[in-house]
Amino acid sequence: MVETPVLLDVVAPDIDRIEKAIRADIDNLSGDLDKLLVEILKYGLFGGGKRFRPLLAVVSSRLCENFREDIYELAIAFEYLHLATLFHDDVIDQADTRRGRAAVCKVYGVSAAILAGDFLHARSMEIIGRHGGVDALDIFCQATRGMVDGEFIQLRNTQNYNQSEDDYFEAINGKTALLISATAEIGGLAGGADAIEQKALREYGRNLGYGFQIVDDLLDYLGDELKTGKAVGNDLAEGKMTLPLIIAMEHAHKKDKEKLLHILTSSEEKVASFSEVYDLISKYNGFGLARKKAEQCMSKAIEALAVFPEKKQKDREILAGLARYALHREK
Amino acid sequence: MVETPVLLDVVAPDIDRIEKAIRADIDNLSGDLDKLLVEILKYGLFGGGKRFRPLLAVVSSRLCENFREDIYELAIAFEYLHLATLFHDDVIDQADTRRGRAAVCKVYGVSAAILAGDFLHARSMEIIGRHGGVDALDIFCQATRGMVDGEFIQLRNTQNYNQSEDDYFEAINGKTALLISATAEIGGLAGGADAIEQKALREYGRNLGYGFQIVDDLLDYLGDELKTGKAVGNDLAEGKMTLPLIIAMEHAHKKDKEKLLHILTSSEEKVASFSEVYDLISKYNGFGLARKKAEQCMSKAIEALAVFPEKKQKDREILAGLARYALHREK
Repeated sequence: MVETPVLLDVVAPDIDRIEKAIRADIDNLSGDLDKLLVEILKYGLFGGGKRFRPLLAVVSSRLCENFREDIYELAIAFEYLHLATLFHDDVIDQADTRRGRAAVCKVYGVSAAILAGDFLHARSMEIIGRHGGVDALDIFCQATRGMVDGEFIQLRNTQNYNQSEDDYFEAINGKTALLISATAEIGGLAGGADAIEQKALREYGRNLGYGFQIVDDLLDYLGDELKTGKAVGNDLAEGKMTLPLIIAMEHAHKKDKEKLLHILTSSEEKVASFSEVYDLISKYNGFGLARKKAEQCMSKAIEALAVFPEKKQKDREILAGLARYALHREK
Repeated sequence: MVETPVLLDVVAPDIDRIEKAIRADIDNLSGDLDKLLVEILKYGLFGGGKRFRPLLAVVSSRLCENFREDIYELAIAFEYLHLATLFHDDVIDQADTRRGRAAVCKVYGVSAAILAGDFLHARSMEIIGRHGGVDALDIFCQATRGMVDGEFIQLRNTQNYNQSEDDYFEAINGKTALLISATAEIGGLAGGADAIEQKALREYGRNLGYGFQIVDDLLDYLGDELKTGKAVGNDLAEGKMTLPLIIAMEHAHKKDKEKLLHILTSSEEKVASFSEVYDLISKYNGFGLARKKAEQCMSKAIEALAVFPEKKQKDREILAGLARYALHREK
């Protein structure tokens, strides 16, 4: 990972303008809002988000012909929507922590977390409509609806331990890829993308999202807790079937498969048997094959950018760098 | 109430088209959606809603010059947003029932209720953007944000037993009036309202919303459980300060005020002392004065419609009838 520091340097001015746009928006809204709501918004928004989604919107827009100065104001909507889903997800998952700090629903209560999520939801759509127009809003709302549908798929798949890779990709499409794909596509639209460019950005975003989520799921087994800031083994403890485990289940011999099923269906065993499951996944190369999938997704993402002209080399490189960064990150 | 059956006859064709638009939209979406999500949407949407908000949008639009056939498709967004807030409110209030049936969060669980609310939220904004354009979306999203802010005001006001009438109107503005006002205004916008007509519809909706909520709060003390389908005394049991009680607190002599405060601050007393509180509110004419306020609001609402021309008499009469209906309803 030689390139990460370079990438961070290159995007620093964009990140800075995104930060300023978020602060300006919140300052602007604050006068009219209940103090507690403002406090929750600030707690969520200034709690270490990497601004990855707004950055993606900005760079996608710049890849196209008509770069607009208000792209930063538009881009923050993607951070807002993402945060809204985190607020609600943490209520749903009864999560204690998020990004190494207490979850909003734990600090401010479930009611406040639901409501603050609704607020960000509405604000994000208002921004998209105002700065992106009705076509952008259509894409944005469809992605939002798709995300909810994805959560229902996940609810339905709970305790289904025979999921296929297709099931997994359907779930992470809703969970992660749809919003990232919409972010790139709407950024492009705002920059005047033609139909080919729009499609390319959608493809880029979708594959980036897939790759991103696979790496996330790998880190849940392989991550260094000191770096990720969260304990390994959460997914297993919750009985969540992620790609490494799905691959192992698909490839395992009868006895090993029964062993895995036994662990998954017994609530006490799941936590205690982490290293056993880890070894079984390793035995069937679940980690290696999942990583390979993530690499393929990132390659597809980068290939999709080929439609953009040579003179956009710098921004193409940033998007390619984001994909490589997401693939090699350790947290 | 001689006019209610007449009013219902007059609006029946509109209600019918609204029902069809909702069914068409859900049927259209269903193919792509998780079955459970569809089931929840149907449970919520076809559970006896009176379609009051969509009707208001349709009639407001027809009051203006350019009536559009797609107003029915637009109008359902207001039912969706309203239902989204009910889903989330029932989670927040841990409600058991809604409209005489089990609340969504009780039947399908808290997670599903939050998510289905998010889905309707996004779908409503998508519809507003598509059929109403960016200006309508702006009004819609601002109302949504204002509703959330109003909920925070309510959270803050919990256990504040010295609220003023202004506090009350601030709270019911967010809770009820903002969305009704936005509904009338956006309906008008879709019908090509000029600035004066737009303002008139906004005023009409705001006052209608105020009056509607005051009557709701009166029914919580005075309603006939057989007609309302819900027990009286809920607000008192929750320690909620509504207008009749606020008026009584303002007007009560020292000893009565202390008595009321004692009841409100003691969790056991609130339920047991319902008839005592009822009598104290009556003593200071809290019910009569609250009803008078509701009547004033409805008069203001109807007066605001004066800007519309004589030839629109029929639709003006429907909106005036809605105000009278809301004032005199017994459930």
